[in-house]
Amino acid sequence: MDPQTFLDIATTVTKLKMYPYFDIAHFMLMCMAVRDDIPQGTPGSPIFSRKHPLSLWLSSMLLCFGGGIIANMLLGEPLIVPLKDHRAILTATAVWYLVNYSPFDIVYKVAKFLPFKLVICGLKEVQRAHKVYHAVVHTMKIYPSSYLVIVLIGTLKGAGSGFMKNFERLIRGFWIPGSNELLQPSFTTKAVMVAATVFLLEKLNYITAPHPLVYFGVVIFFVYFKLSAILLGIHDPFAPFENLFCAIFMGGMWDAMRRAVTKTETKEETDVTTKSKEDKKND
Amino acid sequence: MDPQTFLDIATTVTKLKMYPYFDIAHFMLMCMAVRDDIPQGTPGSPIFSRKHPLSLWLSSMLLCFGGGIIANMLLGEPLIVPLKDHRAILTATAVWYLVNYSPFDIVYKVAKFLPFKLVICGLKEVQRAHKVYHAVVHTMKIYPSSYLVIVLIGTLKGAGSGFMKNFERLIRGFWIPGSNELLQPSFTTKAVMVAATVFLLEKLNYITAPHPLVYFGVVIFFVYFKLSAILLGIHDPFAPFENLFCAIFMGGMWDAMRRAVTKTETKEETDVTTKSKEDKKND
Amino acid sequence: MDPQTFLDIATTVTKLKMYPYFDIAHFMLMCMAVRDDIPQGTPGSPIFSRKHPLSLWLSSMLLCFGGGIIANMLLGEPLIVPLKDHRAILTATAVWYLVNYSPFDIVYKVAKFLPFKLVICGLKEVQRAHKVYHAVVHTMKIYPSSYLVIVLIGTLKGAGSGFMKNFERLIRGFWIPGSNELLQPSFTTKAVMVAATVFLLEKLNYITAPHPLVYFGVVIFFVYFKLSAILLGIHDPFAPFENLFCAIFMGGMWDAMRRAVTKTETKEETDVTTKSKEDKKND
Repeated sequence: MDPQTFLDIATTVTKLKMYPYFDIAHFMLMCMAVRDDIPQGTPGSPIFSRKHPLSLWLSSMLLCFGGGIIANMLLGEPLIVPLKDHRAILTATAVWYLVNYSPFDIVYKVAKFLPFKLVICGLKEVQRAHKVYHAVVHTMKIYPSSYLVIVLIGTLKGAGSGFMKNFERLIRGFWIPGSNELLQPSFTTKAVMVAATVFLLEKLNYITAPHPLVYFGVVIFFVYFKLSAILLGIHDPFAPFENLFCAIFMGGMWDAMRRAVTKTETKEETDVTTKSKEDKKND
Repeated sequence: MDPQTFLDIATTVTKLKMYPYFDIAHFMLMCMAVRDDIPQGTPGSPIFSRKHPLSLWLSSMLLCFGGGIIANMLLGEPLIVPLKDHRAILTATAVWYLVNYSPFDIVYKVAKFLPFKLVICGLKEVQRAHKVYHAVVHTMKIYPSSYLVIVLIGTLKGAGSGFMKNFERLIRGFWIPGSNELLQPSFTTKAVMVAATVFLLEKLNYITAPHPLVYFGVVIFFVYFKLSAILLGIHDPFAPFENLFCAIFMGGMWDAMRRAVTKTETKEETDVTTKSKEDKKND
Repeated sequence: MDPQTFLDIATTVTKLKMYPYFDIAHFMLMCMAVRDDIPQGTPGSPIFSRKHPLSLWLSSMLLCFGGGIIANMLLGEPLIVPLKDHRAILTATAVWYLVNYSPFDIVYKVAKFLPFKLVICGLKEVQRAHKVYHAVVHTMKIYPSSYLVIVLIGTLKGAGSGFMKNFERLIRGFWIPGSNELLQPSFTTKAVMVAATVFLLEKLNYITAPHPLVYFGVVIFFVYFKLSAILLGIHDPFAPFENLFCAIFMGGMWDAMRRAVTKTETKEETDVTTKSKEDKKND
């Protein structure tokens, strides 16, 4: 491909407007995540969305704007800032309504249909890259040299819904304390953390490639792994590196050495015992 | 009644000072709510208020100032602002002490006695209207055109204790994740939401009645439904409208249509089967 | 001891730099608290620190910086402020790594060995006094006359980890709603509350002793009771006073009086019954 054409495409992607298509894809996936998280009742009983629309609406909104809310809380900004954007709230509410109450459940069923699902997930990953980048830029203005804070806020804005999960479940009356995003971080969270670090390094001039290329690279990285997760079932390409890292630094090496030493000692003891027995025999 | 006299009464109500009587009524009901929420232990065992006064005090204070605390959190203001008002804290503490530790439990018993209960609840509803109105005015100054935020903050200031419940229970060592204000919103919450909307519409000049009349109307609405809840056991006058709304918009209509269509299809299939059988006979 | 020498020592203690030794002692105790709080799995199973390093790291950091985070939340300041201090975070991370993953677990075992434990706890109590004092001074600047807020923030900065416990456990996937710092406040919390009050009284000129003496007194008070808790097993020297206070003011007295009255009434009734019987006999 012609490099100039490629750069033009990258620049176009960088300047994409998120509203309406990308935001709608995001809201749709979040509302479907809430819906799929509700345990199926016994057949015949009234389902959750019919009995508790308010609770369902709030938990859907919390996931839709979760990253912003958590980031605002950590940055000491008002939590209700996302609610000020009437257009976003109305769009999210419309999506929530269609996902949960559409005639014959058609919206939900169509969105679950593989080709549509791929498109929605693709759009959503573009929106994710956009959110991470703008979170990094925004945080860098407030805390210029706090690299940890910048990566953290970038991660939360890009994958905030995972961290909101426990609280969002509580609003729906469920409470599963034994699972959270920090105990088993999803691949999305890790990928967003990598992307936030990349954007940070770019801002610090450690990456000299033109900005559209970096941004487009992150978008492709997100979309590629999301689609391969859906199509090929590859859920965590980082897992091998992580396991290696844990095996070396997170105690694995020392545990192995301790086992080795314990064995050696046991063997030495055995040797000594054998030897003493032989000595006794020799006596 | 003479309209001028009525307007004079309304103006007086609008300008009522909340401290001390109305605030004390509010604190009293909150402390009693905390006390009533403690499960009764086995007879003979030391009761909660004797064993954990600190935890009981904090959870009572959280309910007394709950609306303000939640609203401050959402608005990004310091959570401890309610604690700065020493007079309010001392009054609430005195009320908490009297409700839980009065000699022969006389304060609690008197407050539970129907005529006194009616007076206390009446006073409290006047204070509620005052809080909702001032929350709407205050939020409108910070976020002039964010109508959703204004109604939300108004609702939280007026009925914040319901949303504080889960957290307040946690402080007392109880945890009931399956129930919260959003799963089953109480009538109070809904009424406060309506009142906040009315005050908002008034501020936006959609309601042209003089302010004292609007304010007095809300007070009467609150007091009337609270007293009718206590005396007549009418717990939710909104329920019929809600059920109707849910039946039409929250999936009820489509569910009915789906059932109808499913039946029709089944019938058609039966018809077709019957017809084909007849065809076969004709052959 | 020569008073001048004593005052010189006190002044030196007042001006001690917290970093690195005192901070490291604090981080070490916090990381060990998190580690000790993890229930021991069945032998042979992979232990928590090997399986969930991220969750363990975050919960250790939350305890290390817990006081600051809670205080910031209440004061409406950004929660991530402690994360801005890269040096502190890196030190805490190094301590966390050594406590959990040191070869042959040597750091943890040495720190648990009594003489080292005494030194670490001693250093940590000096750091606690420092934190309480600076919290009181800082809060006094923002809210000059809100005495309750000042004592509360001082207490939270000095003993914040206790209040962070429930949330920190949730991050590790545990949830024990029936216990918290407010239901059974530890001696540390109470001692810190006393120290915050002492510093407040000093700032308000109710204590006329020179500042280094007051500060040194608080340090000695903290260290003395901590060491006596470890060496002599005295866990709560305030308990007798508290029990007395509760017995008098928290319902104990009235409960006793009610029992007495009930008995008297029963006795009187018996008397009356006996008398009426005697009357009948006389008739």
